[in-house]
Amino acid sequence: MREEFRNEMRVLEETLTLMARSASKAMDQAAQSLRDANLGLAESVIDADSHIDHLERQIEEMAISLLARQAPVASDLRTVVTALRIATILERMGDLARHVAYIARGRFPQTAVDGDAYDLIVKMGEAAAKQGQRVAKMIETQDIELAKQLEADDDKLDELHRQTFDLVLDESNDLSRQTVVDVILLGRFLERYGDQGVNAARNMRFLITGLHVDVEPRPSTEEEMLG
Amino acid sequence: MREEFRNEMRVLEETLTLMARSASKAMDQAAQSLRDANLGLAESVIDADSHIDHLERQIEEMAISLLARQAPVASDLRTVVTALRIATILERMGDLARHVAYIARGRFPQTAVDGDAYDLIVKMGEAAAKQGQRVAKMIETQDIELAKQLEADDDKLDELHRQTFDLVLDESNDLSRQTVVDVILLGRFLERYGDQGVNAARNMRFLITGLHVDVEPRPSTEEEMLG
Repeated sequence: MREEFRNEMRVLEETLTLMARSASKAMDQAAQSLRDANLGLAESVIDADSHIDHLERQIEEMAISLLARQAPVASDLRTVVTALRIATILERMGDLARHVAYIARGRFPQTAVDGDAYDLIVKMGEAAAKQGQRVAKMIETQDIELAKQLEADDDKLDELHRQTFDLVLDESNDLSRQTVVDVILLGRFLERYGDQGVNAARNMRFLITGLHVDVEPRPSTEEEMLG
Repeated sequence: MREEFRNEMRVLEETLTLMARSASKAMDQAAQSLRDANLGLAESVIDADSHIDHLERQIEEMAISLLARQAPVASDLRTVVTALRIATILERMGDLARHVAYIARGRFPQTAVDGDAYDLIVKMGEAAAKQGQRVAKMIETQDIELAKQLEADDDKLDELHRQTFDLVLDESNDLSRQTVVDVILLGRFLERYGDQGVNAARNMRFLITGLHVDVEPRPSTEEEMLG
């Protein structure tokens, strides 16, 4: 019974790691497809999303089965509850990568945006992909330092996001409506991907320490720029 | 022990109902503040959001404590796991209402958008607020018919959302950059609020039936309009 329990816990953690790698790969490829107007990569992100959704369902079923049959306590219980929460977060990260890939696909053979907007969005894509890689590594290693670093680095993504608003709200910049819409939505999807990474990091810190991370609530970039 | 358990389950359900009512009230007021350029209402939505966050934390603590001490099984276990998931959804709904309120506040004493865009956004706000009320009622009554209706009615919000894209992507419509940005983001926040309501409804159906709701994955409105 005990050995079976440890085995099941290990499979749960491995599935979560696999899911994190898939959500990270999705943004990696989505950001590349945006940068290079790469249709094939965009389509593979879109196709792979149902696999990520499937992993979430699997993790949920494993977690509920573990809770029902093994009644874990203390840090094992935290692991199961955190796995449920992080699976929801990773599923959302997969969706956001898919949203980005859809826009890249829709503008093919052009890149989604051009000029100064292109540089900003490419930088945001790179920053989001890097956060995704860190999330996957953090989940695999359960390294609390990585979790803290992930939270700190989210500011870079926020700063780039602020710059997209400065760009599009300046009427002197000659941009098509389509470009304005694409920049606003790509900016939001990429920043949300980073936010969800931070969310995963806070859950990981709760898992490791048993303590909630108390954070000062602060306005989102949109709230700050538009409110 | 048994009586204590039932008491704790009841408090968990009552807290979730309270949280749902708060998330519903937030969108009610946010939509009104948008329609009437009502600064006071917008500010009360912004201020009330930390209360919604606090309820999520409370529900999480209750749920983990119940799992650790009472090891619920079968439908009780589903209730606890579903409460955790729905609390996360409601917290997000509160955030989305707050995002809307920020934009209403930022444009005061004007309304956030005007002309045809105003009519569309006001309709979307009303539809989102209505979905919020249904979510609260569904959680209180655990009525599966209400859950199904909620899922079906989300199409109306999607259709209005599509119309916002038609409006802003048409270069012949004379709109300021600020208006384009506001319409795109308000549209997204209001539709996401509705999506989260659907998400809550699917979780409620899982709670009542023990079965996952299998849904055909379909593109989001943004993906459909921009992809």
